[in-house]
Amino acid sequence: MNDPIYGFINISSDIIFDLVEHPYFQRLRRIKQLGLTNFVYPGANHTRFQHGLGSLHLMEIAINDIRSKGHEITPEESEAVIIAILLHDIGHGPFSHALEYAIIENFNHEQISFLMMKELNRQFDNRLSLAIKIFQNKYHKKFLHQLVSGQLDMDRLDYLNRDSFFTGVSEGVIGTDRIIKMLNVVDDQLVVEAKGIYSIEKFLIARRLMYWQVYLHKTVLSAENLLVNILKRAKKLASEGHELFATPALHYFLYNKIKMDDLNHTDSTREILNNFSKLDDNDIVVSTKVWADHKDKVLSKLCSHLTNRLLFKIEIQNKPFSESRINEIKATVNKRLRYTAEELAYFVFTGTISNNTYNYNSNDDRIKILYNNGILVDIAEASDMLNIAVLSKIVKKHFVCYPKELNI
Amino acid sequence: MNDPIYGFINISSDIIFDLVEHPYFQRLRRIKQLGLTNFVYPGANHTRFQHGLGSLHLMEIAINDIRSKGHEITPEESEAVIIAILLHDIGHGPFSHALEYAIIENFNHEQISFLMMKELNRQFDNRLSLAIKIFQNKYHKKFLHQLVSGQLDMDRLDYLNRDSFFTGVSEGVIGTDRIIKMLNVVDDQLVVEAKGIYSIEKFLIARRLMYWQVYLHKTVLSAENLLVNILKRAKKLASEGHELFATPALHYFLYNKIKMDDLNHTDSTREILNNFSKLDDNDIVVSTKVWADHKDKVLSKLCSHLTNRLLFKIEIQNKPFSESRINEIKATVNKRLRYTAEELAYFVFTGTISNNTYNYNSNDDRIKILYNNGILVDIAEASDMLNIAVLSKIVKKHFVCYPKELNI
Amino acid sequence: MNDPIYGFINISSDIIFDLVEHPYFQRLRRIKQLGLTNFVYPGANHTRFQHGLGSLHLMEIAINDIRSKGHEITPEESEAVIIAILLHDIGHGPFSHALEYAIIENFNHEQISFLMMKELNRQFDNRLSLAIKIFQNKYHKKFLHQLVSGQLDMDRLDYLNRDSFFTGVSEGVIGTDRIIKMLNVVDDQLVVEAKGIYSIEKFLIARRLMYWQVYLHKTVLSAENLLVNILKRAKKLASEGHELFATPALHYFLYNKIKMDDLNHTDSTREILNNFSKLDDNDIVVSTKVWADHKDKVLSKLCSHLTNRLLFKIEIQNKPFSESRINEIKATVNKRLRYTAEELAYFVFTGTISNNTYNYNSNDDRIKILYNNGILVDIAEASDMLNIAVLSKIVKKHFVCYPKELNI
Amino acid sequence: MNDPIYGFINISSDIIFDLVEHPYFQRLRRIKQLGLTNFVYPGANHTRFQHGLGSLHLMEIAINDIRSKGHEITPEESEAVIIAILLHDIGHGPFSHALEYAIIENFNHEQISFLMMKELNRQFDNRLSLAIKIFQNKYHKKFLHQLVSGQLDMDRLDYLNRDSFFTGVSEGVIGTDRIIKMLNVVDDQLVVEAKGIYSIEKFLIARRLMYWQVYLHKTVLSAENLLVNILKRAKKLASEGHELFATPALHYFLYNKIKMDDLNHTDSTREILNNFSKLDDNDIVVSTKVWADHKDKVLSKLCSHLTNRLLFKIEIQNKPFSESRINEIKATVNKRLRYTAEELAYFVFTGTISNNTYNYNSNDDRIKILYNNGILVDIAEASDMLNIAVLSKIVKKHFVCYPKELNI
Repeated sequence: MNDPIYGFINISSDIIFDLVEHPYFQRLRRIKQLGLTNFVYPGANHTRFQHGLGSLHLMEIAINDIRSKGHEITPEESEAVIIAILLHDIGHGPFSHALEYAIIENFNHEQISFLMMKELNRQFDNRLSLAIKIFQNKYHKKFLHQLVSGQLDMDRLDYLNRDSFFTGVSEGVIGTDRIIKMLNVVDDQLVVEAKGIYSIEKFLIARRLMYWQVYLHKTVLSAENLLVNILKRAKKLASEGHELFATPALHYFLYNKIKMDDLNHTDSTREILNNFSKLDDNDIVVSTKVWADHKDKVLSKLCSHLTNRLLFKIEIQNKPFSESRINEIKATVNKRLRYTAEELAYFVFTGTISNNTYNYNSNDDRIKILYNNGILVDIAEASDMLNIAVLSKIVKKHFVCYPKELNI
Repeated sequence: MNDPIYGFINISSDIIFDLVEHPYFQRLRRIKQLGLTNFVYPGANHTRFQHGLGSLHLMEIAINDIRSKGHEITPEESEAVIIAILLHDIGHGPFSHALEYAIIENFNHEQISFLMMKELNRQFDNRLSLAIKIFQNKYHKKFLHQLVSGQLDMDRLDYLNRDSFFTGVSEGVIGTDRIIKMLNVVDDQLVVEAKGIYSIEKFLIARRLMYWQVYLHKTVLSAENLLVNILKRAKKLASEGHELFATPALHYFLYNKIKMDDLNHTDSTREILNNFSKLDDNDIVVSTKVWADHKDKVLSKLCSHLTNRLLFKIEIQNKPFSESRINEIKATVNKRLRYTAEELAYFVFTGTISNNTYNYNSNDDRIKILYNNGILVDIAEASDMLNIAVLSKIVKKHFVCYPKELNI
Repeated sequence: MNDPIYGFINISSDIIFDLVEHPYFQRLRRIKQLGLTNFVYPGANHTRFQHGLGSLHLMEIAINDIRSKGHEITPEESEAVIIAILLHDIGHGPFSHALEYAIIENFNHEQISFLMMKELNRQFDNRLSLAIKIFQNKYHKKFLHQLVSGQLDMDRLDYLNRDSFFTGVSEGVIGTDRIIKMLNVVDDQLVVEAKGIYSIEKFLIARRLMYWQVYLHKTVLSAENLLVNILKRAKKLASEGHELFATPALHYFLYNKIKMDDLNHTDSTREILNNFSKLDDNDIVVSTKVWADHKDKVLSKLCSHLTNRLLFKIEIQNKPFSESRINEIKATVNKRLRYTAEELAYFVFTGTISNNTYNYNSNDDRIKILYNNGILVDIAEASDMLNIAVLSKIVKKHFVCYPKELNI
Repeated sequence: MNDPIYGFINISSDIIFDLVEHPYFQRLRRIKQLGLTNFVYPGANHTRFQHGLGSLHLMEIAINDIRSKGHEITPEESEAVIIAILLHDIGHGPFSHALEYAIIENFNHEQISFLMMKELNRQFDNRLSLAIKIFQNKYHKKFLHQLVSGQLDMDRLDYLNRDSFFTGVSEGVIGTDRIIKMLNVVDDQLVVEAKGIYSIEKFLIARRLMYWQVYLHKTVLSAENLLVNILKRAKKLASEGHELFATPALHYFLYNKIKMDDLNHTDSTREILNNFSKLDDNDIVVSTKVWADHKDKVLSKLCSHLTNRLLFKIEIQNKPFSESRINEIKATVNKRLRYTAEELAYFVFTGTISNNTYNYNSNDDRIKILYNNGILVDIAEASDMLNIAVLSKIVKKHFVCYPKELNI
């Protein structure tokens, strides 16, 4: 497979080839990696399919490099960790994060990924068992899980480079090759050799830059929240019995209140997964296009804004917006649009965003630097440069959105 | 606007900005430049929107370079030629070339582009008149039209580089900067200065390489023809009164036999354009997904093949396939699938492809090399290297497609 | 002029073209930007000539961008600041920093640059007066000087990118375009707009990375100090009347003890400058090659080590090496080489290196961030991320070098 | 070893590492790949050292790819062919082609390479015997020699890409990876698989472009011939007993008329090789700088022209310059410079250049295309596109050079 970033990507075994060919994975061709980000960066049309293969490619390199340092990774482990990284995003829904909650209450894409892996495991005669064990961090060689999901996993290394490449934000490029070459294993944990410390600093800074310049870009936030409101309105209309154009799969989620919990009941799981696996970005896009002519004025107006990229104005600040400010905006909007308070909430709304570049929940999840004398030091201490207090702090910001045409 | 290839793209005037914002142009965000090519090159998800802006960017450079050589291009002409290149693809339908004929009989995207420009001209108080004149090659400074549509237009210069970039076929990269720098104008015609001759040779060779490695890639051809057959079947079912899931816009074209001629009657033109302007790749993708469960076995099977990328095997050769060979294939297919002859035609089908890298219809359309002594020579004579007889010859190849699972 | 990094570099005026053609500037073709760094990074053969032109190119972009924000830069100022950046390194000697002190006592390359500019000013009928004023920071528009020499000058922006490019240390690449686009002017001072803060963070981190990975690379330090010792030995031999192969220009500096002070006496200045302007890397390289056969055993051994890249082992630590450790090394070396204490000092020697990534001496020399409300904040406060206490602190390290073949 | 083009280059065995460390190979650090080309393309300072390592890197890839197609290459053969490519240019003298004849009469760098390999073989206990056999094409697996020296050898693949990269002539870039991936072996001969035909076409066109845009660039030709004349004058003065500043090694070749034949007498071979192995670009550069002050007016004037890049004007045409035209130029030059006829010949001189992109002397040396049916076809027939008659024809052009300041 040809990749604009890495060149030729090799698929090393039959089962991996078959997994790539499986409809579950092929579906990822139709889900953009960065949702609506192409409204701001028109090049950002790359898909979760590409990202999955890219992560697989980096995993192959990492396995070779770690083996060359004398750590055993058996062929079975190697295949399993490659499968785990290939499928790590298999449970993502259309427009990734933006829409998950609108489709399934309390959506958890890792949980869905796990369920889809289980289903694949059934179809592939339990040949994914070890991959699932690694994915769930239940395997004793912890570093294998860390390569799939950790501070320096192949997921992040690929998406930072890939998102930089396709958005054209060249400052987000990181030294993937060098970072992987600096990886080592101590006590079954992934560590970074000391001479890689500057590369790690640069990785953390690049990641932070990508957060504020791409992932949390104001205009993208505004677009995504507009889309969230469209789905909210559609579900409300559906619950009231109104007709809505939708593919059968989307119709299923609009007209049934599916909760994450429902996926624990085996009888409903298959039905839900079956519908979920037919959903992708296209189902949402066509509905919003068609709904722009819906007779519900709220829905049609929201959809027409999105389809024609007439995005809402967004204001961001560090503290919550005061009630008086919100009311002031609502009043101005209402002068023009004459909505009920309930309807108005779709046009003037607030929310929060947050990010932490280097957060860790447990000791296992820290970047450890390995010095020549064998001592391990947390990057937070090893780097005299970075303010790790800042890196690990969750930055929370507040926003308010409202139609642009109003001068408020 | 940030572009992964050129960096920041500047929009130089208000009307151009407004045209970019117009729903007609925004629609191009939802039409991939290379249709189903991402089945082979997963990075090829770039859109006609990006290509339009890229061509605009190259046009700005070309205008500056040509002016710096002492040729007048007035601000009005400059704005007009930029508008013309921006909108040159505005009339493309979903999946570009693949589907055009399936939607409107005798489809001609340049004609549709022209009609959409006329509609925009109306909306923009005739401020696009000069742009349209240039687009139609009715303006006396012929080189302006040649920059929009000619052997070395900004369209080609952009798409070759862009398609190379996103497919990862790095050998297709051409020296855009240098080619543009070598452009000059003699007697209102675009010419290339003599020292640019090697760059032109390389451009022609790169273009040829892209044709055979990307544009006419076997697997892409197979996928596109599968899609064409799906639409053909759907239209047939529609004409027989069967119900088919479709967005209203697609429904319109499925259930009405629209011909290119119908666009000449002003009363119907607006209705057709209105529906056409709501169509994009997503409408087709969701229908093929939903139709995979249609009760018509032919349609559902074709759609399931496409959605899950179970593409048909394709054989290509220089001469037509013999009837006996076709019959042999059909017989084998039929043993398994038990179709009527009429149905079988959707699964075993032939066709032709053709390409000519440097074809010219008229003297105006040749690449002219300008020597220091002022003499102009056709590249076919100027290059002792390239076999122009080959370049200008239309290469025609024949193909046959049939389901892969059969070993024939 | 074609540049592998920026493409075509345009020379905008006659006087600048003539300065590039002048023997003083042509000499920079023969002085490598990174001295002996190519011993470690074989690609690092780029010259101060290339860097001068690269800085000029960035200056042209910066001038345009700053002008487009409404700040006046007259054509005279523009030409002057371009001349100033073009000539900012004109006074560099062979192997840049490594050798300066060996050639002229208390060497100061900025002072030499100034003297050479004065001489050029004389030859060019005082047309460089404004450039010199800007270079010396005596012009009222301080930001023009800051573009030549300051925290974010075009010198640094070019050399970081250029050194990254040619060494292949891709992590040193910075977002030159974006940083320049973020520059603005307030009260005649260069500032950075707030949305450029992440780019600045990345610039500082990249610079730090380049310091430790390239500029202060152990092996390069070892090679440079070996070369310094060679010159020291040669000067000693010269002072004792021994004959040494050297070009006339190098001979002049070997056999005359030139001090920086001597350059203040107009009678000797011209003679010194004349000889200095004939010196470049080649004079040093051939002498070290020829001296490898010199009858002085110390000189010949040092030179043979350098020519054949048998570099000394280097140890680096944060505190000074203890006298006992040094003596221990010397004793081991002496067992083999049987030198006098005076001779031994050329084979076992200590030194220090230091670096500070963001040091500022005066308030003027800080990176100032400009917020939308017009307030200026030092990057040290504006960035909650970087530990500026660390960035501004001078890191000093100690090293000891000795012949590798000894196992000590 | 870090390479700006390929990233990290791995040295796979001890003997290869030792050969890289050997003074013979280290000498290549001081010989530029493209001689005086940096007068035109300032980035072209890359060395034969870098090229040697780059070729080695491509050879490792080629060996792996060919092995993966089922062809045996034993570890011994693999090491030998890597050594052969590493050392293929070991015999190059300063400024490569330009100066060879000036230093040794009838110079043949392949012959010198062979002699230096023989000497290395002696020093390395005959461990280079197989490498030398392959280098001389005396080994039965012909394709190994073809990888070192043939139409598609690793030498060419590296230098085309490397020269493109460092000159910034991006159009010369070729698809190295893809070309190597298309290589195969039939009957011990290197062939190219049919689907690689477009890449080969592009390779040939890129090579042709590099010839005319870089290797035979007018200004470079002028500079190189100026240097040739300088050496010719210096040798004449030496033969007349005049003193000339030179390093001992250069002195040896100036004052002794060494012929290629002298290298066949073992007694003199070692002395010649010893002196030759001490020569590099630096010896020539310092002499031309110093000779700019020589009392011989011809020599000093020529040297001052070269050092300060006051290159001669060059005219190129397809047929020889007429005697009357030459006399006219000489007369004009003489009016100013008052030289004898003998002296004048250094300032006004003619010569020829030639190039053939795809020339082959024997059947073995043709690019063979391997079709799926196993048939081999010469590229000249396989490509309907390229005019191979042109490619294989030697293009010969005539030039005349004379000082620029004269308007003739």
